[in-house]
Amino acid sequence: MDEKKLAQLEKSLSRRKFLCDAGKFAAGAAVGISTIGLVGCSTNTAEPPKENDGEKPEAQQTAAPANQGLPEWPWPYKKLDPEKVAKRAYTYYRKGGCMYAVAGALIDEMAEVVGYPYNELPTNMYKYGGAGVAYWGTLCGSLNGASAVINMVTKDFGKIINELLTWYCEFPFPSDRYEEYCAHPGQVTTVSGSPLCHISVSKWANAAGKKIHSDEKADRCAKLSGDVAAKTVELLNAALVDGNFTPTAALNDKGEFEHCLSCHTGEESTLDNVIAKQNCLDCHDDHNK
Amino acid sequence: MDEKKLAQLEKSLSRRKFLCDAGKFAAGAAVGISTIGLVGCSTNTAEPPKENDGEKPEAQQTAAPANQGLPEWPWPYKKLDPEKVAKRAYTYYRKGGCMYAVAGALIDEMAEVVGYPYNELPTNMYKYGGAGVAYWGTLCGSLNGASAVINMVTKDFGKIINELLTWYCEFPFPSDRYEEYCAHPGQVTTVSGSPLCHISVSKWANAAGKKIHSDEKADRCAKLSGDVAAKTVELLNAALVDGNFTPTAALNDKGEFEHCLSCHTGEESTLDNVIAKQNCLDCHDDHNK
Repeated sequence: MDEKKLAQLEKSLSRRKFLCDAGKFAAGAAVGISTIGLVGCSTNTAEPPKENDGEKPEAQQTAAPANQGLPEWPWPYKKLDPEKVAKRAYTYYRKGGCMYAVAGALIDEMAEVVGYPYNELPTNMYKYGGAGVAYWGTLCGSLNGASAVINMVTKDFGKIINELLTWYCEFPFPSDRYEEYCAHPGQVTTVSGSPLCHISVSKWANAAGKKIHSDEKADRCAKLSGDVAAKTVELLNAALVDGNFTPTAALNDKGEFEHCLSCHTGEESTLDNVIAKQNCLDCHDDHNK
Repeated sequence: MDEKKLAQLEKSLSRRKFLCDAGKFAAGAAVGISTIGLVGCSTNTAEPPKENDGEKPEAQQTAAPANQGLPEWPWPYKKLDPEKVAKRAYTYYRKGGCMYAVAGALIDEMAEVVGYPYNELPTNMYKYGGAGVAYWGTLCGSLNGASAVINMVTKDFGKIINELLTWYCEFPFPSDRYEEYCAHPGQVTTVSGSPLCHISVSKWANAAGKKIHSDEKADRCAKLSGDVAAKTVELLNAALVDGNFTPTAALNDKGEFEHCLSCHTGEESTLDNVIAKQNCLDCHDDHNK
């Protein structure tokens, strides 16, 4: 190895070491992928479902009681059908993005099953979270929409949302529940390991060889929105109706990053200098190895 | 340099290079900081403001019109006082975290100034975003709460939210507008360079030598919530009332990461494989340097 290469190596490590030693924390953006395929063309010609595509459902609406206004929090919840909600969210995605798809599908389904106040709540208020908020790639909008509705219907929102995010990080999106009517059946699946839009989307786009602005990526995110909406319904049904919610991820469970987080996260930890639950090594070196 | 050190350097660089070449995307958690100070004790004994501390304001409430229910989206907005909202958000933080602080302060201020429907909307529905959603450290909850309200009152939410997030990334939090009544005056300020809770909080905690669960950190985030709420009011006043909103950050502005994002982000880019607007180099090597 010549001196020049050695100097480059040292320079690289020094910058990395600085990141660790000085506490320059992390999460970000572009990475050097040089081979991304062009937009594919094998689309399914089947029409996606047209019913309930974003307009407030007409059936079973209940008028607001005179002079009553809005109910106190938490708002009422009744058992929903996960598959019906998934299909609705898949359809809504193309009208307003991932946050709108999930929050809109859940609220409109409750408009049908529960009635007031969901039948009057404007679901357009939940469009801001698409693409991780204004294309910043932060929190996946499907999780933002789901969390907003979970917080709407229960005081126990924390443990249910924690379970949802843990599941999201480990699930191979998208599921195949849309094969009969989706635009692009048989898509590649990827596990994000993160609740961030930036990571979730780029991992899939890279594995699938599709661009962010391709129709295939839109279809993947529409399906993911449906999957998140369905999982949310399963969790809410278990927690609020059936009474058999059992978190697989205990609150404060540090999972495979116990090694990192036991020192860095939590009031009882030695350092207590981090708020996080996801994969540390996506951004940081493991300084104890 | 001996062979062992050289091998370590190469191993480190190889892993980094893999991150770039293989497209392992990023954002994460713990970093090796070995010196974090104990919780300090120099607190301000002045009582924080007690008025309007989270209960629905009584003044100027307007009853819901009989049988009318909720108005259509977007809901009405009237000019608010940024300093009043900042003080309210600062106070609310201790009752429900950062998202609740900002959304609650904005909604309760509108309850006073506008009336219905804000005077009946339960602000407890906006608690889920604290600590970046269930302690996951994703999107800063103050931005989530602000974005939810911006989307509530205008169809032009995208450009206002983009401006807010850009400002957040560059602002030295916390401001000193709370010095007369805050628990911990004269705090260290830091610029996050990111809208993520994880990065924003850890950068400050490291610079200040305070733990995540310290009272000083809570005070810093209470002040940050007030700062974000005040900025949101300034942007909404300019866009919706005064008609002089001029984004300093153009949509699609790639800023100092033009170098990275011009290839990776946007429909017209060569690769189109990333959703992001923030600092790329917090997580990734610059593979073109």
